[in-house]
This record gives sequence, structure tokens and C-alpha cells, in this order.
Amino acid sequence: MKLARYLPILEWLPGYGRLTLGHDLMAAVIVTVMLIPQSLAYAMLAGLPPQVGLYASMLPLVLYALFGSSRTLSVGPVAIASLMTAAALGELFEPGSAGYIGGAVVLAVLSGLMLMLMGLLRLGFLANFLSHPVISGFITASAVVIVASQLPHLMGIEAGGHNLLTLFPGLVSGLSRINPATLAIGGGTLVFLWLTRKHLKGVLVRSGLAPQTADILVKTSPILAVVVTTGLTWTLALDQSGVAVVGDVPGGLPGLVMPTLDLALWQQLAISALLISIVGFVESVSVGQTLAAKRRQRIDPDQELMGLGAANLGAGFSGGMPVTGGFSRSVVNFEAGAETPAAGAFAAIGIALATLFLTPAIALLPVATLAATIVVAVSGLIDVPAVVRTWRYSRADFIAMLTTILLTLAYSVEAGIVAGVGLSIGLFLYRTSRPHSAVVGRVPGTEHFRNVRRHEVETRPDLAMLRVDESLYFANARFLEDCVLDLASTQPELKDVVLVCPAVNLIDASALESLEAINERLKDSGVRLHLSEVKGPVMDRLRGTGFLDNLTGQIYLTNYQAWKALEPESEVAGQ
Amino acid sequence: MKLARYLPILEWLPGYGRLTLGHDLMAAVIVTVMLIPQSLAYAMLAGLPPQVGLYASMLPLVLYALFGSSRTLSVGPVAIASLMTAAALGELFEPGSAGYIGGAVVLAVLSGLMLMLMGLLRLGFLANFLSHPVISGFITASAVVIVASQLPHLMGIEAGGHNLLTLFPGLVSGLSRINPATLAIGGGTLVFLWLTRKHLKGVLVRSGLAPQTADILVKTSPILAVVVTTGLTWTLALDQSGVAVVGDVPGGLPGLVMPTLDLALWQQLAISALLISIVGFVESVSVGQTLAAKRRQRIDPDQELMGLGAANLGAGFSGGMPVTGGFSRSVVNFEAGAETPAAGAFAAIGIALATLFLTPAIALLPVATLAATIVVAVSGLIDVPAVVRTWRYSRADFIAMLTTILLTLAYSVEAGIVAGVGLSIGLFLYRTSRPHSAVVGRVPGTEHFRNVRRHEVETRPDLAMLRVDESLYFANARFLEDCVLDLASTQPELKDVVLVCPAVNLIDASALESLEAINERLKDSGVRLHLSEVKGPVMDRLRGTGFLDNLTGQIYLTNYQAWKALEPESEVAGQ
Repeated sequence: MKLARYLPILEWLPGYGRLTLGHDLMAAVIVTVMLIPQSLAYAMLAGLPPQVGLYASMLPLVLYALFGSSRTLSVGPVAIASLMTAAALGELFEPGSAGYIGGAVVLAVLSGLMLMLMGLLRLGFLANFLSHPVISGFITASAVVIVASQLPHLMGIEAGGHNLLTLFPGLVSGLSRINPATLAIGGGTLVFLWLTRKHLKGVLVRSGLAPQTADILVKTSPILAVVVTTGLTWTLALDQSGVAVVGDVPGGLPGLVMPTLDLALWQQLAISALLISIVGFVESVSVGQTLAAKRRQRIDPDQELMGLGAANLGAGFSGGMPVTGGFSRSVVNFEAGAETPAAGAFAAIGIALATLFLTPAIALLPVATLAATIVVAVSGLIDVPAVVRTWRYSRADFIAMLTTILLTLAYSVEAGIVAGVGLSIGLFLYRTSRPHSAVVGRVPGTEHFRNVRRHEVETRPDLAMLRVDESLYFANARFLEDCVLDLASTQPELKDVVLVCPAVNLIDASALESLEAINERLKDSGVRLHLSEVKGPVMDRLRGTGFLDNLTGQIYLTNYQAWKALEPESEVAGQ
Repeated sequence: MKLARYLPILEWLPGYGRLTLGHDLMAAVIVTVMLIPQSLAYAMLAGLPPQVGLYASMLPLVLYALFGSSRTLSVGPVAIASLMTAAALGELFEPGSAGYIGGAVVLAVLSGLMLMLMGLLRLGFLANFLSHPVISGFITASAVVIVASQLPHLMGIEAGGHNLLTLFPGLVSGLSRINPATLAIGGGTLVFLWLTRKHLKGVLVRSGLAPQTADILVKTSPILAVVVTTGLTWTLALDQSGVAVVGDVPGGLPGLVMPTLDLALWQQLAISALLISIVGFVESVSVGQTLAAKRRQRIDPDQELMGLGAANLGAGFSGGMPVTGGFSRSVVNFEAGAETPAAGAFAAIGIALATLFLTPAIALLPVATLAATIVVAVSGLIDVPAVVRTWRYSRADFIAMLTTILLTLAYSVEAGIVAGVGLSIGLFLYRTSRPHSAVVGRVPGTEHFRNVRRHEVETRPDLAMLRVDESLYFANARFLEDCVLDLASTQPELKDVVLVCPAVNLIDASALESLEAINERLKDSGVRLHLSEVKGPVMDRLRGTGFLDNLTGQIYLTNYQAWKALEPESEVAGQ
């Protein structure tokens, strides 16, 4: 039982039968066909030779099959992690150089170690601090940057950069040097992929295919573009007319690669590796959870850290690049009928066969074709309605989202995420530091109490009831003091203040000291402090502190009890 | 009216009469007597020549009188800011060198500019993020470090450092080289000051003095130690037997000093200046508020920023060091009867007279006397019971406090504060990311609902009611999903889930998306999602979002209404 928790393969392997095998094999074939152009393209996006993308699509899939908790997640190079890889390595090395390729290996290994460590320490919850607006913001913005970074390849011009500020000058000055043949290939592929995305499914469904099968065929259409444009380049010798091609790719399987043990380099790449890990983890978990829920399965986020960590270690030691669970490939795997992670292992075999036998064929594959594949794949990630929705719902969330977007566009995904997370936390703290509070009065004839500003309620000059709608902690402790003391200074006949606490989920040590100070200061002016509707866990904490001993007033179970007990007549009657 | 807000002197100056003048003059004399040894001592603690402490006790007091909002706060060099000054400058310059003295000027000017900027932007609330345990922690720890740093002066040995790790080796190795005459002066002063603190007040009160007067006399006793030990040194020529003395101090008032405009230096000192400013601000505001409350006055934290900023600018431009409102001097000022900030201005005149006429006399003042003054002054800041109290009340607060203490002791006040604040925020977020939640059931025969684990309550197999005791935001959005979906998977007959929301003060965009995801996933398994007891402000937000349109269930005003409406019979009756 325990071992199966850490090695999820033990859960499904014993019951593995011929039927499942058939389904998994079918899914593997389809995923392989989809993965070949995607792996080449994302390696290019990362500034790496194309075969590195293929290397990163073998061993990682096998290792994820052993350790991952999702049944249908498909790992490999993905768009945003590739962009982040390019940005991290581009600062240190010349793209394509031996140092750059070695840096990618270090990034993958570091990322693998970090993910496994986070898994062992069960730190999966840290990903929760990436709020939805920040995630949505950096995905949209990096998709825009990725599209912009592929425009030079589509037009056959030179322009590099990992953000809009660095890409823009090269793009503008390059417009006069567009290569027509490249533009024709790139533009043609783009239009083809676009049309298949938009209309092919409808055509196929009308001609009798099941919608799911049609969907899968649409997703594998890039391989057709690869075959056709490679054929065209060969036939018309387009590489002689300035169409950039992939070029000779070393055949054969990757050997065991040892990462350079250059400590300074590891330190320089540590932050990037951490962010690539966290971003990859968030992407994987959200894809994995969505797919698992459709089949009433659950995934275990901490085990996912182990699975992704193992996959990245595998990617590193086989000369690859950072990998994670991709959205589109996982959906294809799921919809093609994959039932267990074995489908991923079979796809790895498919990629291995392709690496062994097809690499000579891709020498004449135009780079523009890969660029078009990338553009179509990532343009689906640009989500403008989400920006509008966030603006409408919450200005604070929108500020965090906009900051993330702008910094990602202008500088880097890393800067965008760090600023977005910092701002999310800061804005949340700011909001809770000035909580909503209300003076409440009694709804006449009832036991209910409501905000005096919103309702016609009964109040008394000798009694003030203040409801604070927030946990009391260091950031709002002083606010509470100001609130109560202002109340006391504006109501001269005041004899009793009741703090109404049903929304107070926590009173920390700072707030406790503030309550003690409030109690003392009110006492100096002859006013008693009471609490009402204190929650069980909060009351448990307060018991045993000096505060309850020194409290000038009482703790009331309900607000109504406080109202009755503090009535001038009832006090006289009680004495 | 408006001008008086920014220039508080306009509030009290028009009504200034002879009686107030008398009281303020009296307080000024007492404070001056107390300030002379304190200013010399804290300059020494900061690694600066003694006259710098005097310079920082003139112009700042006058400027604070113009801009500060507290009537009785007394500004000048204080212990913790002096320690922080020494730590910041000690990394860059040789103590006592021209660069070091110029650095103190830059620190004061930078601190003044930062405080005024924070005042203009009304950023006083930022100080709230220093939680009470962190403040208490760094005060206790820096008092310990200050005491340790004065031990070498008390024993006449050489040992430097701004934390225990650097002080300890010098102290141990110096034990064999103790200077007996210095130890006699230092130890004698220490015992004298200790005894006057402990017993003099009792003796004076018994001999007929008012307790307040007795208190003030006790606080001014260091001047007596100064006079006696200087006399002894002169009579016995102790400076010839190795007793370190203050030495020749330039007489006369400070001229206008222009801070060096070395941008690199300003950058190096910026973080230190910011922390000195914030720590000083927190200290001033808490002293100011305590004293103001005793006379039913209020202080304005944002105006305090202006007052302290002006004081620090004044300190910088007159060749001083960073200043702030000190606790003991302000209490003496208050108890000696000061009624307006004019008392501070009069004390400044007193210090100026002392600087003009008494500086030759302090040449033979033993350094050990000043060290003893410091030890006695700061030992009162060491608050061990607060540590115990925090440990008992809240482990999370204790962790933040202990981290602050250990880092301050071992490294620096800056490190302690930064780590303590970071940890406070992190622990608060962690706590709110795993909120208290409870499945509730109906207390039989009532409209009340309680935790099923704590009470005997009615539940139904088709209905689950979950109460979450926290605002719903990005850090706990996934926790909420897990909670609800676990609930759904363990209760097979479930048809309705009600989220009970009276403690939900906020639903941010991330939590809204999680609610949408929960709604969708429950719908897939044929379960409806309802909300109950949603607060007004939260409901206002939810209106107009797609969530309400797609919600499979209803929003109920009270839990009881949900319970009644979702009864199987009532639904049949309703159809």
C-alpha cells in the first residue's frame, strides 16, 4: 500500500490487460505523430538544436510513467518552459554553442532535483501562491512574445530576443529584407494550419467521422505540413534560395550525458530553474486535474512533483531540456484513448524509432514550418476575455495581472511572475489591513443585528457594537485600535463597547496586544470592552491569556445576549 | 485649518501662555540634564565622536517642534538606531574616520528624505507590517547585543563588533588584559546606577518627595556619575593608568554640513537608512501614542513621518546622526510636565549651551562611565516574559519572534527584521491557505447549525453543508476545491452541497474560478452547488459574474432556509 503511493505504476500495472494495451498503443501512435514536429519546434524556440527536443521526449516519458500520478498526462518540451529556457541561457551563452547545450542540461537536472526535493518536503502547496490572474497573465503574455519571436523565422529575417522590447527593433529593420520563398512557406503553413483548426473538424464530422477522431486528426495535421514543405524544399531546392532549413541532425539515440559540475553556473541558473519548475508544475497539475476529473480520478500534487522531477532528471541525463506536462499533447493522449502512463512509454519508443530512422529526412525541413507550428499552437493560449473578466470582477486582481503581463512582454516571464506574485500577496495584505467593519444595531423586535448605515436599526447611546469582518492580525491590529478609539471619542455617553466577532477566524499575538491596549485605554475613560460571537478555535486560544483576566467586560455567546445583558434596567435588576 | 494639519505648531502656539511656558521650561531643564550623557553615550555606541551626539540633539528637536504631531515626544539619538548606524557604517569605513562621520550624515539625510516621502505618500500604514512579536524580538535582541558591545569599554579591553558572533572572540581573548582602574570606574558606575534605579525612588518617596519627582531624579542620576567619575579621573590622573577617556572635544556649535553627493555611497546606505527610518518611526509612534492617550490626545502617524523626517534632515545638515523619538527621554519629558513641543526646543537650547561651555570639562570623562550608562538604559529593554507569553499564545508568532531574535543576535538588526517580517507574512499566508473548515449539521429542532464533530446534530445523506472560516483567495482556492470534491467523493447519495459563507469576507478572482470549477465538476456528477449566508459586500461582487448564471443551485440568505428548501419532500411539493 505504502510503496504504491510513491510508485503509482504499482497501482495499474498488475491489472494491465490486452484491451488496455490496445488503447494505449493506439494513443501512443497518434501522440508520436503529433510530438515529432512539436519537439523539433520547441527545441528551436529554446535556441537548441532540433534533436534535443526529440531527446527530451523519450526517457522523461518513461520515468513519468513510473512516478507520475496522472494516468494521461504527456510530458515533454512545452512552449513557455522553452521560452524561459531561452531567456535564461541567452544571457550566458551563444545560442546553439556547446555551453548553451550544456546549460540546458544543467537547467533540466537542477529543475529535476528541485521538483523532487519539493515533492519529498511536500511543498506542492507553494504553487497555490501563483494566483489565477498571474498564471493567466503570464501565459497570455508569453504566448504573445513567442508569436513575436517566430515572426523573423516566418519571414526569413534575422531578429532575436526574448521580449518585445528586444524583438521589435530587429523586426522593424528586417522588414526590408524579407525572403519571399521563406514567407511563402511560412505563410502557407500558417494558413493551412489555421484552416484545418477552424474548419477541418467540421468537414470531417460531416463526412461521417466521430467528433473525437476528427479532433485528433486536426491535432496531427502539423506532420502533414512538415512532410509537404520538406518535399517542396527538396523538389524546388528552396534551401538554395535562402530558405532556412533544419540542416543535418545527428542520428541515433542520445547517450548518457553528465551535466557540467560548474558550481558558478549552477548558481546562475538556480532561480531560472526554480521558476521553470514551478511554472511547469502548475501547468501539469492543472492539466492533470482537469483530465483526471473527467474520469473521476484524482491526482496527488506532491506525487506529481516526484513524477515531473524524475522526468526532468531523465531529460537532463539524456542530453535534453526542461520538460513538463503539456496541455495539447495531454488532451490528444486522453482523447485518443490512453488509459495508463504506459501510453507515454510507448510514445517514447515511437520517438526513438523516429530519431533512429527519420532524422536524415528532416535536414531539408524549413524552419518556417516549425515557426508556423509554434505560432498556431501558442496563439490559442492568448486569452483576452480573461483579462476583461478580471478587470470587471476585481481591480486588485487586475493590477496583479496587468503587471505580470507588462513585465513578461517587456522583460521576461520570470520578472512577470515574481512581480505578479509579490503584488498579489501585497494587495491581499493591504486589503486585509483595512478590513470592512460596521457599527451594527438591532433590527427592531428581533435577535438580528445589522449595519446601521444599510438598515433601519435600533441603537443606544450607552452601547456601541462594532463588527469587524476580518481575522485580526498584525497588519490590521492598529486599524482596529483606531476604529474602536474613534468610536469611543465620538460617543460621549458611551459605557460599553461590544466587538462582534463571527468573522474573526484568528487573533494573532499582535492583535491580542492591541485588544489589551484597547481594553486599557477604554478603561481609562470608563468604558467597558466586551466580545460577542467569538468562534470556538479563537476562544480556545484566548483562554489562558491575561487578556480574559483583565477584560473589563464579558464574552457573550450571541450579540442579542450582549444587548439584553447591557440594558441599563437589566443591570440594575441584576445587581 | 488645512495648514495646521501639516504644521501642528499652528495648533498650540496661538494659545501659548506664561503657565505653559513655565511647565515647558522646567521639563526642558530636566531633559537637558538627562540628554547630555545620553547623547555622548549613543554617539559612542554608533562609533562616532561624542560631539556628534550633541549636534543631533539640537536642530532636530527644533524641527520636530514645528512639524511633529506629538506634544511630548523627545527626539534625538537612541540606542537601537545607534547600533544600526554602527553596523551599516562599520562595513564601509574605519570607525571615527572622516568617511565614517560623513556616512552618518548621509544616513541621517537619506532617512529624513525617506520619512518625508513616506509622509507625503501617506505610507504610515507600512509600519503595521512589523508585527508586535518581531518588534519585541529585535528590541530584546539588540539590547543584548548593545550590552555585550559595552562590556569591552567597561573592562578596558579591545573588542569590536555589532553582533554576538563577532564580539565573542574579542571578549574572551581580552579577559586576560582587563584594566583594573577601568573596571573599577565602569563597575562602580554600573552598581551606582543600578542601585539608584532599584532603590533611590523608594528612599526619596519615603523622605517626602512626590513619586513623580522621585522618578525624574532617578532618571537624571547618570549626570551625577559623569561628574563624579570625571572628577576622580582628574584627581587621580586615571587616564595615565590606562583608563580610556572621551578626550578633547571641539567646542562650539555645529556649522552647516553638506552631505557628500557620492551616489554609490547613497545606494550602499539606502537599505540601512530605510530600515533605520522604519524602526525609528515604529518606536516614535508607539511612544507617542502611549503618551498621547494618557492626556486624551491623538497623534497622526502620517504627520509623525513628516516630523521625524524634518528632524533627521536637521540632524544630517548639522553634522549629526540618525535620530528618532526615544522612549525614556520622552517619558521624562512627559512626567516633568512638558505640555508642548516648545519644551523640546528649550532643551535644544540647553544642549547648545552645554556644547558651548562644558565641552572642555568632558575631556577627562571615562568612556567606561558612558558604557555603564548605556548598559543600564538598554537592559530595561530586554523583555524575556514577552518571549514566554508569545510562545504560550501562538507558535507561529513565536517562530517569527525567535527568528528575529537569533538573526539580530548573530548577524544584525536588519537581517532580523527582514527575516521576521518575511516570516510573519509567510506564516499568515500559510495559515490562511489551510483554513479551518467544518461540515455542519442542524441542532435538532432549531435554526442553528454546528460542526458535526463537536456537536450532536442532524445531517442528511443527500445534503452536505460545508462552512469555511476564511476569506477565499488564491492561496486557499485549491484547498477549497479539494475540500468540496473530497466531500462529494465520500458521500455517494449526495445531491446538494451548500457552502456556508458567514466568515467569507472576500472572494478573489482565483477563488471565483475555483468556485466555477467546483460547480462544473459537481454538475458532472449530478450534484448541485449552493451558497448560504453570503455577506453583502461579497454578494455585490458576485452579481454580474458568469458564476451566478451558471450556478447549478441557489443562494440562500440563511442556512436554515437552505435546509428547508432542499428537503426532498419540499422539493416534490415545490414542483
